[in-house]
Amino acid sequence: MAQVAYQAFQVIPEGSIVSPQGFAAGGLHCGLKKTERNDLGVITCEVLADAAAVYTTNVFQAAPLQVTRESMQNGKLQAIVVNSGNANAVTGQQGEKDAYAMRLATAKELGIAVENVAVASTGVIGELLNMEKVHAGIKGLPARVGSGKQEASDFSQAILTTDLVKKEICVRTFIDGKEVMIAGAAKGSGMIHPNMATMLAFVTCDAQVDQAALQGLLGKSTDATFNMITVDGDTSTNDMLIAMASGLAGNETLHPGHKDWENFAATFNYVCEVLAKAIARDGEGATKLVEVNIAGAVSDDSARAIAKTVIGSSLVKSAMFGADANWGRIIAAVGRAGEPVQPDQVDVKLGSILVLSGSRPVAFDEEEALRYLQGDSVQIHVDLHGGSGVATAWGCDLTYDYVRINAAYRT
Amino acid sequence: MAQVAYQAFQVIPEGSIVSPQGFAAGGLHCGLKKTERNDLGVITCEVLADAAAVYTTNVFQAAPLQVTRESMQNGKLQAIVVNSGNANAVTGQQGEKDAYAMRLATAKELGIAVENVAVASTGVIGELLNMEKVHAGIKGLPARVGSGKQEASDFSQAILTTDLVKKEICVRTFIDGKEVMIAGAAKGSGMIHPNMATMLAFVTCDAQVDQAALQGLLGKSTDATFNMITVDGDTSTNDMLIAMASGLAGNETLHPGHKDWENFAATFNYVCEVLAKAIARDGEGATKLVEVNIAGAVSDDSARAIAKTVIGSSLVKSAMFGADANWGRIIAAVGRAGEPVQPDQVDVKLGSILVLSGSRPVAFDEEEALRYLQGDSVQIHVDLHGGSGVATAWGCDLTYDYVRINAAYRT
Repeated sequence: MAQVAYQAFQVIPEGSIVSPQGFAAGGLHCGLKKTERNDLGVITCEVLADAAAVYTTNVFQAAPLQVTRESMQNGKLQAIVVNSGNANAVTGQQGEKDAYAMRLATAKELGIAVENVAVASTGVIGELLNMEKVHAGIKGLPARVGSGKQEASDFSQAILTTDLVKKEICVRTFIDGKEVMIAGAAKGSGMIHPNMATMLAFVTCDAQVDQAALQGLLGKSTDATFNMITVDGDTSTNDMLIAMASGLAGNETLHPGHKDWENFAATFNYVCEVLAKAIARDGEGATKLVEVNIAGAVSDDSARAIAKTVIGSSLVKSAMFGADANWGRIIAAVGRAGEPVQPDQVDVKLGSILVLSGSRPVAFDEEEALRYLQGDSVQIHVDLHGGSGVATAWGCDLTYDYVRINAAYRT
Repeated sequence: MAQVAYQAFQVIPEGSIVSPQGFAAGGLHCGLKKTERNDLGVITCEVLADAAAVYTTNVFQAAPLQVTRESMQNGKLQAIVVNSGNANAVTGQQGEKDAYAMRLATAKELGIAVENVAVASTGVIGELLNMEKVHAGIKGLPARVGSGKQEASDFSQAILTTDLVKKEICVRTFIDGKEVMIAGAAKGSGMIHPNMATMLAFVTCDAQVDQAALQGLLGKSTDATFNMITVDGDTSTNDMLIAMASGLAGNETLHPGHKDWENFAATFNYVCEVLAKAIARDGEGATKLVEVNIAGAVSDDSARAIAKTVIGSSLVKSAMFGADANWGRIIAAVGRAGEPVQPDQVDVKLGSILVLSGSRPVAFDEEEALRYLQGDSVQIHVDLHGGSGVATAWGCDLTYDYVRINAAYRT
């Protein structure tokens, strides 16, 4: 699936966020969602874990982000409490009070120091949380927390909003000869765009990792994965990605000088990439995953800007929905990215089908292209022949269902 | 309709691009479009007109833009030939040859110097023009050119692609006591985004205007009108806006020092604004015109960036389609614009309905909001209370029809 330089790791299909040593999770329905789906969840760690986090760049940061930032000041976490159905965003001082109350209640019920609890919320903006329901839910959480597949699934369900499927991954590698597990769970699926989205993602890991190194790795992986996906160009108020490392695997502390660092980083990055692609594929209304690969840009940054522009183009996304090999729209998006491009030397491929060579249309088999574009994963390759910059971005098609879902989200 | 400081002008409902003295136009079906709609048109002027033009910022500029730039080197034009159905973009050297051939044939048929003819194209990208049809069409043009309402209508039809309606405006004012007419015709309706779009617009005027002043005015008006509309965030390869001034009204040459300059500029700007809003309202699949007004930004530029972000948000656009008073999405878009915003002091109104005050939700009548948002014109007002910067942007809702139109454009 993912292309990484060093792939000495193995996907554990039956694994989950509780597979890394020390972690447990749980979830339940407390009533914030109108349906019976879970809407409150928690991840806990039996020891104080080294933790790293990244947050939305949106000016309007939701109240739980402020609380989590405060908890993250010492780089340690022991629990993350998450609700869906209500973002607790643009809710003023009452919203802040509510986020702090969620943290306090979770700490109390789980017997954890309050400053080691992170809070995350996702859902509708601008409505106050029903704290009666939240408190009742948090009271019920300890009985639901465990280290089994079911409890992990309960948690993964609890963080979803308009998502159709859970997004989970568990990978195993070896560090200092010790087995290390890295796992993650995430939610999309609207307001997904570079620089974080209505996106919550949680990565658990049992390696011992230097906290600063973990934060650096998280930032770098986020730039290459979560910040390279878009569903609709909107960046949410609530995006947050938290990684926790329990250190129970028994390895020597990982940092960039450790002999197995590259392996660990590649494995960690793979977990992020799988979650990011899963979010893109499950974008609101999406019928397929679209991957855009840019090569030959003047720099990687330039390639990223172009890849994001193409993956974010409503016209390209609509064409992908219609399985239309409309490379003109791809080219038009490349050309408006504001990056250096030689307009006369661009190649475009849809999968392996060359449609533009040296900026000249190539006769191709329309039937073959149609069949390819009707698949559930589509790759667009653009080579600018202008340098060595490369980037990959992921997104989805723009469909009737996207409009249906978003024309009446609140009702 | 439009709010301008100085409004000493009058809309002429029966007017058109041939109302200003000296202008004629025409259009016909030459076969580039599969339907029987017109696809080739021309505007001519009986004298050599002072002209100004602005072009797309897309790196992949279509062949006709190169030809028009060349013709514009002396700041004079006497004719503009336009085809729809094929953009002649990303068509390589053959595309350039074809655009030059269109110019030459038009000049020859109309008896005009070749360097005074501009060429514009709109339609599908990446396919060569059928020059046999184009040449046959151009041969037929002189017989179809005239100064009547019908000929103007034939032209306005000829420049449309997925547009549903013609976009025309004619306004009268007085300069030096002489009657002056300014008129325009434009087409949208996909790939519409700030910094020009799949947008062609032509403004005719019979005032005598200094060419440099006309170019300056065109640039300024474009920034405030055409560059403030978006349909889908995509900037086309073919956008072009051309203004021609015949000078036959008999006024003293207009320039910024002329006593009636402000009046002329306001009138000219009004013509651009009407055309820009008409393009937004007729965006692909649109059911309504959406206007975003930003006040209280740190600068006008900042306000423009925020207005464009809000009007371009797929989530805001979907909510407008669903008549959903989802101000959370408006706020989320404001917050991701990358501009300075105090997150705790923002007001949002939908029409006259206050929904957010000082960044706190206001209880409002949902039924009243629904009725307002179901209208065919919706205004979103955001006051940031952070400065004196203001801006207005126009767009449309995101609908099932947008997806339908763009999922199968080529087929």
